Amino acid sequence: MKALVYQGPGQKSWEDVPDPTIQKPTDVIVKIETTTICGTDLHILKGDVPAVQPGRILGHEGVGTITEIGDAVTTLKVGDQVILSCISADGKCDYCKQGVYSHCLGDEGAPGIGWIFGHLIDGTQAEYVRVPYAETSVYRLPPGVTPQQGTLLSDILPTGHEIGVRYGQVKAGDVVAVVGAGPVGLAVIATAGLYGPSRVIAIDLDANRAEKAKAFGATDTVLSSDSDWKEQVLALTDGLGVDVAVEAVGLPQTFQMCLDMVRPAGRVANVGVHGKPVEFPLQDLWISNISISMGLVNTNTSATLLRLLAQHKLPVDEFISHTFRLDEIIEAYDVFARAAETKALKVMINV
Amino acid sequence: MKALVYQGPGQKSWEDVPDPTIQKPTDVIVKIETTTICGTDLHILKGDVPAVQPGRILGHEGVGTITEIGDAVTTLKVGDQVILSCISADGKCDYCKQGVYSHCLGDEGAPGIGWIFGHLIDGTQAEYVRVPYAETSVYRLPPGVTPQQGTLLSDILPTGHEIGVRYGQVKAGDVVAVVGAGPVGLAVIATAGLYGPSRVIAIDLDANRAEKAKAFGATDTVLSSDSDWKEQVLALTDGLGVDVAVEAVGLPQTFQMCLDMVRPAGRVANVGVHGKPVEFPLQDLWISNISISMGLVNTNTSATLLRLLAQHKLPVDEFISHTFRLDEIIEAYDVFARAAETKALKVMINV
Amino acid sequence: MKALVYQGPGQKSWEDVPDPTIQKPTDVIVKIETTTICGTDLHILKGDVPAVQPGRILGHEGVGTITEIGDAVTTLKVGDQVILSCISADGKCDYCKQGVYSHCLGDEGAPGIGWIFGHLIDGTQAEYVRVPYAETSVYRLPPGVTPQQGTLLSDILPTGHEIGVRYGQVKAGDVVAVVGAGPVGLAVIATAGLYGPSRVIAIDLDANRAEKAKAFGATDTVLSSDSDWKEQVLALTDGLGVDVAVEAVGLPQTFQMCLDMVRPAGRVANVGVHGKPVEFPLQDLWISNISISMGLVNTNTSATLLRLLAQHKLPVDEFISHTFRLDEIIEAYDVFARAAETKALKVMINV
Amino acid sequence: MKALVYQGPGQKSWEDVPDPTIQKPTDVIVKIETTTICGTDLHILKGDVPAVQPGRILGHEGVGTITEIGDAVTTLKVGDQVILSCISADGKCDYCKQGVYSHCLGDEGAPGIGWIFGHLIDGTQAEYVRVPYAETSVYRLPPGVTPQQGTLLSDILPTGHEIGVRYGQVKAGDVVAVVGAGPVGLAVIATAGLYGPSRVIAIDLDANRAEKAKAFGATDTVLSSDSDWKEQVLALTDGLGVDVAVEAVGLPQTFQMCLDMVRPAGRVANVGVHGKPVEFPLQDLWISNISISMGLVNTNTSATLLRLLAQHKLPVDEFISHTFRLDEIIEAYDVFARAAETKALKVMINV
Repeated sequence: MKALVYQGPGQKSWEDVPDPTIQKPTDVIVKIETTTICGTDLHILKGDVPAVQPGRILGHEGVGTITEIGDAVTTLKVGDQVILSCISADGKCDYCKQGVYSHCLGDEGAPGIGWIFGHLIDGTQAEYVRVPYAETSVYRLPPGVTPQQGTLLSDILPTGHEIGVRYGQVKAGDVVAVVGAGPVGLAVIATAGLYGPSRVIAIDLDANRAEKAKAFGATDTVLSSDSDWKEQVLALTDGLGVDVAVEAVGLPQTFQMCLDMVRPAGRVANVGVHGKPVEFPLQDLWISNISISMGLVNTNTSATLLRLLAQHKLPVDEFISHTFRLDEIIEAYDVFARAAETKALKVMINV
Repeated sequence: MKALVYQGPGQKSWEDVPDPTIQKPTDVIVKIETTTICGTDLHILKGDVPAVQPGRILGHEGVGTITEIGDAVTTLKVGDQVILSCISADGKCDYCKQGVYSHCLGDEGAPGIGWIFGHLIDGTQAEYVRVPYAETSVYRLPPGVTPQQGTLLSDILPTGHEIGVRYGQVKAGDVVAVVGAGPVGLAVIATAGLYGPSRVIAIDLDANRAEKAKAFGATDTVLSSDSDWKEQVLALTDGLGVDVAVEAVGLPQTFQMCLDMVRPAGRVANVGVHGKPVEFPLQDLWISNISISMGLVNTNTSATLLRLLAQHKLPVDEFISHTFRLDEIIEAYDVFARAAETKALKVMINV
Repeated sequence: MKALVYQGPGQKSWEDVPDPTIQKPTDVIVKIETTTICGTDLHILKGDVPAVQPGRILGHEGVGTITEIGDAVTTLKVGDQVILSCISADGKCDYCKQGVYSHCLGDEGAPGIGWIFGHLIDGTQAEYVRVPYAETSVYRLPPGVTPQQGTLLSDILPTGHEIGVRYGQVKAGDVVAVVGAGPVGLAVIATAGLYGPSRVIAIDLDANRAEKAKAFGATDTVLSSDSDWKEQVLALTDGLGVDVAVEAVGLPQTFQMCLDMVRPAGRVANVGVHGKPVEFPLQDLWISNISISMGLVNTNTSATLLRLLAQHKLPVDEFISHTFRLDEIIEAYDVFARAAETKALKVMINV
Repeated sequence: MKALVYQGPGQKSWEDVPDPTIQKPTDVIVKIETTTICGTDLHILKGDVPAVQPGRILGHEGVGTITEIGDAVTTLKVGDQVILSCISADGKCDYCKQGVYSHCLGDEGAPGIGWIFGHLIDGTQAEYVRVPYAETSVYRLPPGVTPQQGTLLSDILPTGHEIGVRYGQVKAGDVVAVVGAGPVGLAVIATAGLYGPSRVIAIDLDANRAEKAKAFGATDTVLSSDSDWKEQVLALTDGLGVDVAVEAVGLPQTFQMCLDMVRPAGRVANVGVHGKPVEFPLQDLWISNISISMGLVNTNTSATLLRLLAQHKLPVDEFISHTFRLDEIIEAYDVFARAAETKALKVMINV
């Protein structure tokens, strides 16, 4: 089959590779119909994720059809159209039993981390993919949800929902601020509406991106380049700060912005992937009664989000900015890598 | 001043009574601008609530302006426009400290019940009203919320929200069924949307009322007079039943409907005021993992709902079916009492 | 092998039956070391549970050693000493993913009920047992926990903990009353201590049983035969009632006792297995802000309880009142059936 | 009257000052029976808390008897023996209504901080003290609790309980590690037992202090001076780290220890008062699914702790290391300031 293969820092190829095969009774093989590219794939290509070895097929998102099932699989069958999760959950370790699939102790790749597709095992940017722990890691695509919409459930929507909204404990009436209106920040905004906030403020350097956030449910926008950005945010609250500040960029200064605008007893939810430590002003904040959360998506709310997607309760259609064929994936990478210029959000890649 | 006075079962009058005066340092006096009539007022008039003595001014809902404050009041001032709560919370008993204002132990009227307006002390269907425990029982009307909208926060919206939606633990993705599309059932429906349900099913005997529920956020309707109502409801779920069933009528048969359609591990939230015991089939349900809740509104979410109302996040405008002047209140009672015929929901009474 | 076989109402036999075999890749076979008898087994023998067919091996509790594993089993191996759960959880249905193993939709026996051992498939009162969904239904016995203690984790301890204490939402400082000081009531008492109650009141008809409850953590006892039992209970509170009332008998009158003594905004947790409906005085209780829960054990806290058992944090040793050899099981049934006379709590049956 | 007065950095005096008087209808005057010294008082004396002006009477803990009440006070009377909270809660602002008394917006001293005694208004190290917002800030001393025990409820016990145990979300079966076995760390340990942990590990530099922690409920001790302290801690878990790590020192290195030993999806609760920022390794931890909390005590669990204290459910007696008369308070300060040498925990000062 054809697949997008990582060839070491800065190098990738679209090439012929062997078809995947069932290796364990809990595996299934899926023929990919739709996949996409994640910001993490770009990090890998830069060489920032050393666990990814040359020769690895990239990708951890997608929808496809089951072509083969392992002997222990009883709830899925050949022909089922399924959404793949970026997290592979064995469903039987202590973490999985608590719904913390992100730290699954399963024996695929590195125990203790549930993200293995396109990382520790071959991924979804290919014609076929082997899916371990299939019955606890995939979701049947229901009527009324397109494969492209379903692909948003592989990673981005549950990430925004679980790590931004739920870890941030958004509750009815809250004022929520989201720093960073890229794909993940927009996923936070799109799912925050499920919890009844009174305002959702999109904060970004780029006025177009911030404005675009309104299509996902933002009620207000603030430009982080404005010198009085903080005053603008506080003016949208009772003057004491936001209830929940979500970091969706991954830089020390945007994390600091969250600390600056959260109210006493509020929450900061970090969603961004960081490359550097941040200075945490505990001498000021020990008295603040705030909490700070962070983490990798569990995908333990994917079934919930799927039910909502099927009822058209999530404003997701504007996520898909570009569409490519699978054999155009190299071009798709190029468009996605130049997002500032191409205004790419999610680039959908259909077989 | 003029007031609507209960004169014993079946009798009421619009008559001259003495103006209220400050009795405790925590009191304020409010000049009523808008009030309304609750189903409970009709019950009182039938003689169903013996604690209400002849001579009592009725009413426990309304918005008005403060004309006088007690010596201990520091956070409210003369001229403030405020929403009155149907629950008077002293703010200092064990129940109030836990937010259970419904069972406030304060010394006004009967300790242990927070509903005293138009019940144990004079109420709001008058030109002026004495408001005990004012600082912990009223909310300043914010810009952008009309007195008529604010009046919905005295009782009906927090009742639907707290006793239906929150006690019912509605959560993202849930299928919620509400039996009874009268004012309180509609308040459940209007506030359920704050918790991200995938479906909200309005169930009523009357097709017009059920259909009307869609303006408040219902996604589906079922007629309880249909012999296959239960099958219709189950068809809107995965076949196992609804996650949350809310009783908003107050009859044994509607309570039983809730038990019939709730799924294993679901919740039944009773909002209806009942006059008779119900038979509870514990021989079948002990194994069901359901929970059943009930209660009087706490109004401890009124501030939250007010914030949402000010941001136009609650579909409430269709609650107001009729409008009267205060001196037309006898006519307003008549229209409200014949709701089936007049299609009355909330009848607003403005000074 | 030898097994205790149900032969229809009133009849059981200790007889030779075929050894169990692996039927699915997720099965294991366990050689029983310790098993016990549950009150439910007595109900089955009376013919009260028609789903149990003659020829069925009874028993749903026990500890043993794995002698064979299915092809999909990776986290258990031959020789592992394991605690069997009374609930068989497939670990992959919607209910299991939420931890509601009691209503597992798995395909063994009747979908929708997780209790299948000694009910819909052969049980544990035998030399060997086939264990379906083994990796999500058994727990490895840790050092320091005896097989007899481990057997308490099959059913009785998680039942008391999950359905009594957790569904009852016992929290720090609460006054908890438990009606019925039989094995399950004692399991409620033994696990309530994990949540910091200020008092745990054991209520029983039998003074010896109530007194015995103190060894499990009860702080006070009340005889339900006393005409002033309710006044005695209220005197142990602030006069308003208990925070949590747990029903652990299964009769209408004991359920009513719970309603009588729970305070406004308290919780009633039903653990008892009921054979008749109860009258529920909703005309009085709609205003009470109480909640009522019920259900079958999920065993989703067994791992937690096991960790506590291994650290000697649960007062469980007095549960074991009698010990028998497996070939004396008919005698063990006799002693357990006459518990009032023999003072049997749990009768341990060791191979 | 006599009082301990702050005279600027490094200086204090025991001198005559005017008696306090009622200033607002919600005030009471309390004659102190027992007070104590907090580590914060030592910080103030060093000049570290510039908001404290020379001339201020110090102290924010104590038990005494009401000698005078304001006009609005109805639930307290002259002669009541009461525990004073270190937090003054007006009971009517948005924060107080949510139980976040730490950030009370009341008009005493600085709005937005509930700690005002011995900080922004005169404190409790005196013969008499004016207590603002008395009905929402004091607790009646129940029979069976001594004034000395009650004084532990002013600050240290709720601080350990709320900021360490509850913010740390300690739950049944958890392994909890507490870094720092000083008074606050011991309060964390003493109240952690209310939540059913399987282990509570006391970590300290001083072997005697760590060992002492066992009297408060610690199950294990580790010396932070051991180079393999982390391995020792991990050996007390399943190898993945502790569920909850509590920082009760206030230094960057002890905060870092907590980050080092918490397991994926665990919680870090900061209780220590910090004087410097800490470096937070977000480049490693963004993927960890941990949360970090911090804050000032709310004292919203004081009533709960008092109920438990009255039932002898908290191991607190060893907190009191020294006892002085009020006129010996200068000596008491000296003993407390040299805690390492004198082994002082709480020095009780009785009139």
